[in-house]
Amino acid sequence: MGITVAIVGVGLIGGSLGLALRDCPLVERVVGVDVDRRVLAEARAMGAVDACASLQEAVASADVVFLCCPMEAVEQLLQAMAPCLRAGAIVSDVGSCKRRVMEAFARCLPPSVQGIGGHPMAGAETTGIAGSDRYLFENAVYVLTPPPGVAAASMERLQSLVAATGARVLVMDADTHDVLVAAVSHLPHLVAAELVRVASRQPEALVLAAGGFRDATRIAASNPGMWEDIIFSNREAVLGQLEAM
Amino acid sequence: MGITVAIVGVGLIGGSLGLALRDCPLVERVVGVDVDRRVLAEARAMGAVDACASLQEAVASADVVFLCCPMEAVEQLLQAMAPCLRAGAIVSDVGSCKRRVMEAFARCLPPSVQGIGGHPMAGAETTGIAGSDRYLFENAVYVLTPPPGVAAASMERLQSLVAATGARVLVMDADTHDVLVAAVSHLPHLVAAELVRVASRQPEALVLAAGGFRDATRIAASNPGMWEDIIFSNREAVLGQLEAM
Repeated sequence: MGITVAIVGVGLIGGSLGLALRDCPLVERVVGVDVDRRVLAEARAMGAVDACASLQEAVASADVVFLCCPMEAVEQLLQAMAPCLRAGAIVSDVGSCKRRVMEAFARCLPPSVQGIGGHPMAGAETTGIAGSDRYLFENAVYVLTPPPGVAAASMERLQSLVAATGARVLVMDADTHDVLVAAVSHLPHLVAAELVRVASRQPEALVLAAGGFRDATRIAASNPGMWEDIIFSNREAVLGQLEAM
Repeated sequence: MGITVAIVGVGLIGGSLGLALRDCPLVERVVGVDVDRRVLAEARAMGAVDACASLQEAVASADVVFLCCPMEAVEQLLQAMAPCLRAGAIVSDVGSCKRRVMEAFARCLPPSVQGIGGHPMAGAETTGIAGSDRYLFENAVYVLTPPPGVAAASMERLQSLVAATGARVLVMDADTHDVLVAAVSHLPHLVAAELVRVASRQPEALVLAAGGFRDATRIAASNPGMWEDIIFSNREAVLGQLEAM
């Protein structure tokens, strides 16, 4: 029998994951959960999910749950879903910092459920289901951060699903992940936002901006609330890299 | 009778300028000067110049001289060409900092020659004649920084030539230019180089780098020697913007 997947939060990443997993022969069914009913309707119309359900209903039938929500919502959702999760289920996420999520898994999940952190190194400046892309993960690195003593069968199952999206799976511990992404993702976002702020103090400056400035600051167009959340969550590692700079 | 243009330094910018100006009806002849004979031969084969000559020969016949050399070479070239320049000639450059060049013009050029700073806000990570592009300046901003009391006829002549490359001419004083490019060009280059350096301290980090890191650091692939020269020349303004950041 195939795997039932629940995707909690059907935005850019959740929608793209749904589109990719529905093409995967291992997967029988993808169930979408979202606080916004219009988003769910769009996800279904786009073919990103087979069905929609409440959080509790969705996780009760799921073999694998992907939390694709903002990081600040992770802990609350874990608490809400914990009583309904099946024994043997896997819960993963797609957040940009892994230590905080691994701690939340340890606090909230029952021992019969395996929490394994995940971080696809793919995205876009856009957000929302409308930007979803079946091939968003194709050839992208997708980091998995298992807890110490993870069940081998759970890890294999999650790796197979992730590999089915076209991503290249990379396994490392949460702390290593957080230091590395601080260098290649969080610090560059912070710096791009600052470059825009500094240049904008002199409005005439932007008239002189050429392709170099455009590319160097492209990522500053990302969702500021989401990035505040990410950088704050990973503040120790980001401060370390900022200090090095 | 048409204008004779001398291009001193036939690299990416000089070659592109030559290609564009040879298409301009105002221009009768483009003469190339370079320390490297192979570069001159390539420039001629590509149609970037009509002829090649020594510095002294080229400027002796030129109505307009474009210095397209590294900034550190400007003053020495001005001294070498000054005795040979025609009365009424215009000397311009394409360097990224304008105050230092304007000072060199004032020191080196005879009173009968007009020195007007220039800075095309276009370029590429590549250097050299092989990367030259007839349309490099198309729709790019091209800043001109005339000295106080510039002769109107000289300014008009230079503006017409620059406009003929497809660029949009913007006139401002050298100090304003230097502060603005520190914000939109020099600081972003410095920061991109630092982002690469910080990330490279942990070689595994680059495996996690996605499109955001690639774009944010694209300009770090520029010629380091040239950028050291540029940032050092404009250090006051760059330090001011760095402080703001």
